[in-house]
This record gives sequence, C-alpha cells and structure tokens, in this order.
Amino acid sequence: MANTVFSGIIAYTITPFTLDEQINIDVLHALIDKLIDAGVDAIAALGSAGEGVYLDDDEWHFVASETIKQVKGRVPVIIGIAELTTKKAISRAMFAQKLGADAIMVSPFSYYRLSEDEIYDHYAAISDAVSLPIMVYNNPATCGIDMSPEFMLSMIETIDNATMIKESTGDIQRMRTIHRLSQGRVPFFNGCNYIALDALHAGAVGWCTAAPCLIGDLAKQLFDSVQHGEPEKAKTLFEHQLPLLEFIVNGGLASTVKAGLEIRGLAAGVARRPLKPLSEEKKKTLEQILLKVIG
Amino acid sequence: MANTVFSGIIAYTITPFTLDEQINIDVLHALIDKLIDAGVDAIAALGSAGEGVYLDDDEWHFVASETIKQVKGRVPVIIGIAELTTKKAISRAMFAQKLGADAIMVSPFSYYRLSEDEIYDHYAAISDAVSLPIMVYNNPATCGIDMSPEFMLSMIETIDNATMIKESTGDIQRMRTIHRLSQGRVPFFNGCNYIALDALHAGAVGWCTAAPCLIGDLAKQLFDSVQHGEPEKAKTLFEHQLPLLEFIVNGGLASTVKAGLEIRGLAAGVARRPLKPLSEEKKKTLEQILLKVIG
Amino acid sequence: MANTVFSGIIAYTITPFTLDEQINIDVLHALIDKLIDAGVDAIAALGSAGEGVYLDDDEWHFVASETIKQVKGRVPVIIGIAELTTKKAISRAMFAQKLGADAIMVSPFSYYRLSEDEIYDHYAAISDAVSLPIMVYNNPATCGIDMSPEFMLSMIETIDNATMIKESTGDIQRMRTIHRLSQGRVPFFNGCNYIALDALHAGAVGWCTAAPCLIGDLAKQLFDSVQHGEPEKAKTLFEHQLPLLEFIVNGGLASTVKAGLEIRGLAAGVARRPLKPLSEEKKKTLEQILLKVIG
Amino acid sequence: MANTVFSGIIAYTITPFTLDEQINIDVLHALIDKLIDAGVDAIAALGSAGEGVYLDDDEWHFVASETIKQVKGRVPVIIGIAELTTKKAISRAMFAQKLGADAIMVSPFSYYRLSEDEIYDHYAAISDAVSLPIMVYNNPATCGIDMSPEFMLSMIETIDNATMIKESTGDIQRMRTIHRLSQGRVPFFNGCNYIALDALHAGAVGWCTAAPCLIGDLAKQLFDSVQHGEPEKAKTLFEHQLPLLEFIVNGGLASTVKAGLEIRGLAAGVARRPLKPLSEEKKKTLEQILLKVIG
Repeated sequence: MANTVFSGIIAYTITPFTLDEQINIDVLHALIDKLIDAGVDAIAALGSAGEGVYLDDDEWHFVASETIKQVKGRVPVIIGIAELTTKKAISRAMFAQKLGADAIMVSPFSYYRLSEDEIYDHYAAISDAVSLPIMVYNNPATCGIDMSPEFMLSMIETIDNATMIKESTGDIQRMRTIHRLSQGRVPFFNGCNYIALDALHAGAVGWCTAAPCLIGDLAKQLFDSVQHGEPEKAKTLFEHQLPLLEFIVNGGLASTVKAGLEIRGLAAGVARRPLKPLSEEKKKTLEQILLKVIG
Repeated sequence: MANTVFSGIIAYTITPFTLDEQINIDVLHALIDKLIDAGVDAIAALGSAGEGVYLDDDEWHFVASETIKQVKGRVPVIIGIAELTTKKAISRAMFAQKLGADAIMVSPFSYYRLSEDEIYDHYAAISDAVSLPIMVYNNPATCGIDMSPEFMLSMIETIDNATMIKESTGDIQRMRTIHRLSQGRVPFFNGCNYIALDALHAGAVGWCTAAPCLIGDLAKQLFDSVQHGEPEKAKTLFEHQLPLLEFIVNGGLASTVKAGLEIRGLAAGVARRPLKPLSEEKKKTLEQILLKVIG
Repeated sequence: MANTVFSGIIAYTITPFTLDEQINIDVLHALIDKLIDAGVDAIAALGSAGEGVYLDDDEWHFVASETIKQVKGRVPVIIGIAELTTKKAISRAMFAQKLGADAIMVSPFSYYRLSEDEIYDHYAAISDAVSLPIMVYNNPATCGIDMSPEFMLSMIETIDNATMIKESTGDIQRMRTIHRLSQGRVPFFNGCNYIALDALHAGAVGWCTAAPCLIGDLAKQLFDSVQHGEPEKAKTLFEHQLPLLEFIVNGGLASTVKAGLEIRGLAAGVARRPLKPLSEEKKKTLEQILLKVIG
Repeated sequence: MANTVFSGIIAYTITPFTLDEQINIDVLHALIDKLIDAGVDAIAALGSAGEGVYLDDDEWHFVASETIKQVKGRVPVIIGIAELTTKKAISRAMFAQKLGADAIMVSPFSYYRLSEDEIYDHYAAISDAVSLPIMVYNNPATCGIDMSPEFMLSMIETIDNATMIKESTGDIQRMRTIHRLSQGRVPFFNGCNYIALDALHAGAVGWCTAAPCLIGDLAKQLFDSVQHGEPEKAKTLFEHQLPLLEFIVNGGLASTVKAGLEIRGLAAGVARRPLKPLSEEKKKTLEQILLKVIG
C-alpha cells in the first residue's frame, strides 16, 4: 500500500501559455523554482488552477513531465487527474507513476451524475493500476459530484492506495467529521482558501492552494504558526492574506492567478477560452490587493 | 444566416460498443435505420445518450461521420457538441459542417463555472466558424451551467447562427417564458422526457429524445396527436409511454437505453466506465415496462 | 369519511383592511359577491392571499365566519389552516366545521423542520377531530416543508378525511406523478398560477387562485375550455392572462392583489407589515397589465 | 442608543411542560438556577430551544416574566422574538423591556418571503419602539429567510438599537466576513453548535447554545480556553463535547434537550405537537452520549 504522507502547503502551479496558446515552458520552470524558494512543501500540477481539463493530451503529458523534471525531487510532486472515463484516468495515473510522481489527486469529474458505486469503482480501478498514493479530492463546484465525508472515508478504508482526502467545499463541519470519524488517522487537506485557518485548527494536515504563486511564503507562515501553537499570530497572518485568497477564488482561479503573475512580471498568459482574462478593472483591484498583502 | 427549421421528434442515437469497447458500427447502422423506419423527424448523434463526451477524438469523428453516411439524407442530422474549450468546440463544429450535418446542438459543458460573457463568446466564436444552425442547449444536470430563457433568447437575437433552443430542465414555465418573450418566433425543443406532453402544449416545436430507440413511433404518435388538436388522445398516448420515459431517465440514460436495446435484440453493449450497466434487477423491471408499453 | 369533491376554480379571497388596520368587512362582502358573480366554483378564505397567518385569533375567527355567512351556500367554502401547533390547527378546524365550512385546506407551516412522521400525525389528529374533507396543501415556498407526491398520497390513503391534494410547487411532473400513482382517483388541485394550463392538461380537477379577484371569469373560461376539449382556445386564454398571473405571484400575492383591487375601485387596503405595499412604479405596471388583460 | 455588550456563553432555556401541556414553572426555575450555577454568561429565553413560536400569548408572557424574575439580575437575560407581524413583534419587545430584559434577539420569521426592505423596516420599527439592544438573528433553517453578512451589518450601522449579530447558518466564512467588514467592531455570536470552536477562533464574542442545559460548564470551559489562548485545550474540550452538540441539533433541538433533561432527572416534558418526542432508541443513544461526555 502507498504510504507517503504529505503535509503543509501543497502549492498548485498554473499552466502558462504563450501568446499563440502554446505551453510556455520557461515560465513554468521559473514558477516552480519560485514556489520551492517560497518554502512550499509540495507541488501539485494539473489541478483546477493548472487548467488540467482544458489541455489536450500532448500538452497534459508535457506539463506533467516537465513539472517533475524541473522539481528534481526538491519537494514531492502531486499530479491532478480529473477525467471523464475510468480508462483515461488510469492511463494518466500510470503515466504519472512512470514519470516518478509522488502521488495523484483524483476527482470524479463527470457529465452524467455518478452513483457512489460508480465513483467507488472508478477509484478502485485507478488504485489497482498504480502503486501511487491517491488523494481523494472532493470539489462539487467544479466536478458536479459531492462526496460525503462518510463515503470518502469508506474508500480510504477499503481501496488500497486511497490514503488521503482533500475537501474543497468550504464546509468546516465536514473536516471535523472526517477527523472525528477517522479518529484523526486519515490525513486530510483543505482545498478552500476561505477557510484555511479554520481547517488547520480542525486538524487538516495541509492546505492545497495556488496562493503561493502570488504571495510567496505567507501561506507557509500561516501553516507554521498554527503548528507552533500561536493562534493569535495565525489569525493575524490569515486576516492579512484573506483579501487575496478571496479575490483569487471569486475572480476565477486560473484567470486571476495568471493576471497576478503578469502583474508581478511573470508572463503566464491568459486562461484558455471560454475562460476569459480578468477585466482591466479587476486587474487594478488585484494590483492594489497585492500591494497591500505583499508590498 | 442559417435558417433550417426542424420540428417533431429528434431521436438521439446511443453509441454502441463491442465487448472490447470499440464502436460497434453495424449496430449503429441498424439503430439508425430502425429510428428512421419509426418515422422520426431527425437524428441527433453524440448527445448525452450518445456518450459524446466519453469518446476519444477518433471515436467521436468516426461516429459523426458514420451517422451522416448511414442516414443518407433521409432525415436531417444534428451533431451534439459539448466541449470544455472553445477551440475544440469550433474544430468539431467545422468537422460536422464538412461532413454535411444539418445543424449542431451546443451545450456549455464546463469545469469552471462560466459567466454569461464567457458562454456568449463561446457560442459566438462557434457561430463565426461555421454556417450551420446552432441549437442552444440548456441542461444544467449534465453541464453544470444553467442558462436562463432570457439569456438564451439574447444569444438567438444577436448570434447569427444561433437559431433554436433546447430546454432540458423540465421546468415548464421556462418554455412558456421562451414562447412569450419571443412571441412564438424562436423555435424551441423539449429535452426532458417527463414533461414531453406539457412542453408540446406550451409551444415546443419538437421533442429531443432517446425513447424512439426503444418504443418505435410512440413518441411520434404523441407529437402528431398534439399537432392535430387531439388532447385526449395525446394524453392517453403520453400516459401510456410515461413509465418508460421516466425509467430511462432515472436509470442513467445511456445505460438504460443500451440495456433496453439488448433486451430487444440489438447488441448495444454497455456504457463506458465509470458509468455502470443496469443491475439485473433493473433490467427485469425494464423488460416488464417494455412489455407493457410496446408489447 | 368526508367525500365532497370540488372542482373548477377555487378563488382565494384576500383579507381587506381599513386604514387603521381593522378588517374591512364591507369590502370583504363585496369581494365575495364579485367572485361568485364571476362564476367561481368555490371560495377559499384565509389562505396565503388571505394573510391567514398574519391575523390575530379574533380577526381569523371573524373572517372565517363572515365569509361563510356572506357566501350563503351559493358555492362551497374552504377554510385555510396553517398553524404551528397541532392543537391550534385542531381548534381552528373545529371552528370551521361549526361554522359550516365545506372543507379545510391544511398546510404544515413550520418553524422547526418536521419529519414525515410529525406531519402525518398532524394531519391525522386534525382528521380525527372533524368530519370535514381535508385538502392536503403542499407549498414549500411559504411553509418551509416540501411533501412529496408519494407521501401525500400515503396520507390520502390512510387518513380518513384527507381526500384531496393541492400542489403549489409549480413542478408539473409532480402532478403527473400524483395522477399516475393514484390512477386518477385522487383529486388534486394546482396552486401555482404559472402552470395553470399545464396542470389542467395533467389532470388537475381544479385551480386554486386569487386571480379571479382581478380578472373576473377569465380563469373560469380557461378551465371550461380545457374541459370542453378546446386546446387552442385554452392556450390563447392562458397566454392572454399569463402576464397578470405572473405579476401577482412575483410581486407578493397579498400585496399585489390588494393593489389591483384598489386600482379597480375596491378599498382593500394594504398587506400587514412587515409585508410592504406595492411601489408606485409597480402599481403603474399592474395598471397597464390589467388594462391589457381585462380592458 | 442601546450599548450593553454581552459575551461568552448565552444559554438557551427550554420551556418545560407538565403532562397536561401546561408550563412547568418549578422546572423552569430549577433549570435557570442550574444554568447560572454552571457559570453561563447570560440566559436567553423563548428562542428556538424554548419553543417560543409554539406558545400562546399568555404562555409566552408567563415564561418571559418568570425567567426574568427567577434570574434576579444574576446574569443578563435576552428574550427571543420571532413574530410574523411587525405589530406583534413590537408589542413583545415592549413587554420584554417593561419586564426588565437586557436585550432582545429578533429573527425575521416569515410566511411570505420578505425583501430586504421589508426586513429592514421590521427591525427599524422594533428599534423605534424600545431602547433595548437588539441582536439581529439569522437562522434560515427555521425562519425561511437568509440575511447576508452585508445586509445585517447595514442594519447594525443604521438602526439605532441593532447592535449585535447572531449567525446560525454554520458557515464559518460568514463570520470572517462580518469580522472583516466591520473591522472587528460589531460583536457577533455563533448560534450553530457544530462550528462553536471555529467561530470563536474567527472572532465571535460568544456562543448561544442550549448545551449547558445538559453539559453544565463544558461550553464555558471551551470559551475560556479560547480566550486564554490555549488552542490545544480548546480543541480537546470541543472534540469531547462535539458528539453531544451534534446529537442535540440533529435530533430536533427542543425535543432532544428535553429528553436529556428527563434522563438527568429534570421533568421537562415533551415538545409541543407536531414536534414529536425522541424515540426510545434515540433516548438510549443520548443516554450513552451523556455518560461519555459528562460521566
């Protein structure tokens, strides 16, 4: 059974594009180095922020492979997988394993609503095909499927490589439920920026976020202050970065992080259509928030 | 501007698979002939029933092309397009046009929630790329995006090739709203089996349904009886077929229609994983319903 | 067992107030006569339109008693009961029976969410206390409780005096479900103006509405045209009155009907605070709609 | 302007009934003494737990008056007001003031959905009629109205006596929003047991809860540990009492607390119909939970 355990700040990368919509590999490399310099505990590629589902096959393979190469083992790498068919999810999981990824983060992205049976078999089939640890990722806002804490825990218990949970609904009670029902034994991550502090208080072992792309080590500082039992410091740090956390979620994660990187001098390009770039007005607001939060 | 107007029963095909998950082209041909023999007014391929989003690129192109070839102009063919990127939606629309499709049915399938601006530009870009009539297709249950009647009508008014609406929410009031706001000038179709009769009474010019795969010309008879001003006959016909209509929706459209075709002797295979085939128990229920409805 | 069966147009009265917030009994009498002159098939007092839950005990008793007196048996009278405690609901049901009401319309208005067990016992206790037929009334928008067709039918089957259903969700499929599951044997009424025509097509035996307060016999004409098998005439009649039907629901039923009565010369006063009277702008729109619909 | 500020544990009383459904005044007195002995910072009568909306006028007045008499100024008393009409809400607010209540807690309980204008005027009218501080209480699950943090803050800013907020949705982000938008200046309370710890971390000045009826000073200990900057102790205390907190909410607050009091030897009676008493099975579970939590 896969047993790597992550904790801390899992930073999402975005997928930078050139003006003619190609992957901008130099910027991707630069971003990865920047994140590692900011002290993040792991890199997660091809998640929501990374526009994983908007890439074609070649692009997806290229980003996965270049990410792992560029990280060079400095921190663990997690590859996001959100595929409509079990077959393709398996094929991507095997590719990630071959590349040397440390884990995969799998969400049940769907067209038809799936039953729990269907979701279960999807995860089980992926687990059977690889030996990588699987982070069970619940994000109904993008995937259209909402998995209960109870259901996710039942998968953790019975599917070999399913070992971690990532909860992105922003419902703090679900984290408490996971913590309580598993008696603290199942590591879970928070994927909702809004409730980062509360999630850590509730026992989340880490926070998956694209914020480090824009605010350097502030997320990590927050995590550390909670670890060190400094609630007042944690609260101050959280409230300081909250305006940025809220803005990047409300504005469309990929588009906003990309706009922020451009403001900070990294040519990340724009998100892929139909996603639209930030309006000029929102860019100005973002610029002001960034000034306030990181100077 | 594209101006073909469809009406009547638009029959969805399913995409039959062999045991080794290849497209079963013979069964697809047989199904198409069967539908045309049942008097349907048009064939719609690669919609929800057709598992369009679960096919890889080659399979998708193959099904589109074989459908048009087999229909041989006997009825119009509509090709369903539900793509996450505008680029790919355009490429498929152009392919459909090259093949000689009569229209495309476009839904804003999404991962990120899209703003109306983003949806609008998606449709406008597709319209710019082809001269085919576009059916604006609202189905929040599968696409995760809900378009209001007002918004869809605004697209019909201002986007050249957007000429028709397909509403699948099952909310009869939305159909009345479309009818009223457009003063009866915008043709709209019902995509929700449950409310087929009510939708026709409310002014829908047609009904998009996979039911003819299983119940032959019963859907067409219903349509005709409404057209001929025979409300009692229509009601009787509708209530007669309603148990089947409800069952195929509740059980998972693709899986259920495929199970029904197997029962009726057409080797349609099973839906692609993670979708699961019907349980044995449900197959028995379906068998009984089919016996009652079509003998 | 209670077995009176109603059908047709069940007209709601509003509860008119004087400037100093007393019941305006003269206007109530005038309104009742006006409704009966318009050919309505029954009068329903103290429903949503009648602000039943906003009256104090004396006012409620007064309106119930004056309504029955003024109707003088010309049509049946239904008394609405929406009480938070079973005890008070019973006491009002007994009062209605003593006055000579023909039926009661009972909704499970609630503060705490109620379980089906709790709702069931509420209805059963009321049924045990009176011999009046009970219309089981589902209106989650006001009552906060949503009863499924299956649950309501189970009450009809097993609670002696529960003999009719009123469905106000506007979900046409529920009516078809009631019709089908009860094999047409349980009379059900539509309480959602928007779908009046569709509901009648789906087998509703009547339509409960406040519209006759403002549009005279148009609702009755619609009902009759469906009864006489004239779908085109019904459609024309429905579309003609739909703007008014939509407006009185969207604007707040009690407030809008009262504003409309004032426009038409009947001093109905305003709804009880916190409900607010119609804005001047909305009054003008209503005036225009009334002009168009009834000249 | 009213400026009393509460903080800490605001304990709800339930309203005990005798077997013949009368107020059991001796038990109410005993319960109040017990709560004050457990160190609660204030008593709140006639809230959800107190079945305020299920009492008749005399009963309501009796409970309000007896509560204040029995507390005898040992801690502040807050009276809950959830009335359908503004007139009655005012009359109750004036009664509470005359009795010497320290504050009122007002929720916009509704039958018709209310606009923000209507809600605003409701609170403003109550504020005009009394000089007591008003706690603006948001609990959509019981009241059917959901007030946003922004709207509640706008009332606090512009309505004289509206000085505090109580948020019961269980959405931790709303608390952070209130804290941030008011720059920490508007005192807010948590009304959702599930998120008590997170709410205190997010800046809530207090926690309104019926739990002290059953678990003595455990809620107060939790509050104090957060105040004293002891996050680990707080977490341990919270997790210890969480099973009870969840159980009393899920089981129906009034019914469960009453069952728990009976188990602990206080004859609280049962909740008023249609609310049902706890099943025997649930009583056993509650007994076990109580044993675990308080021994």
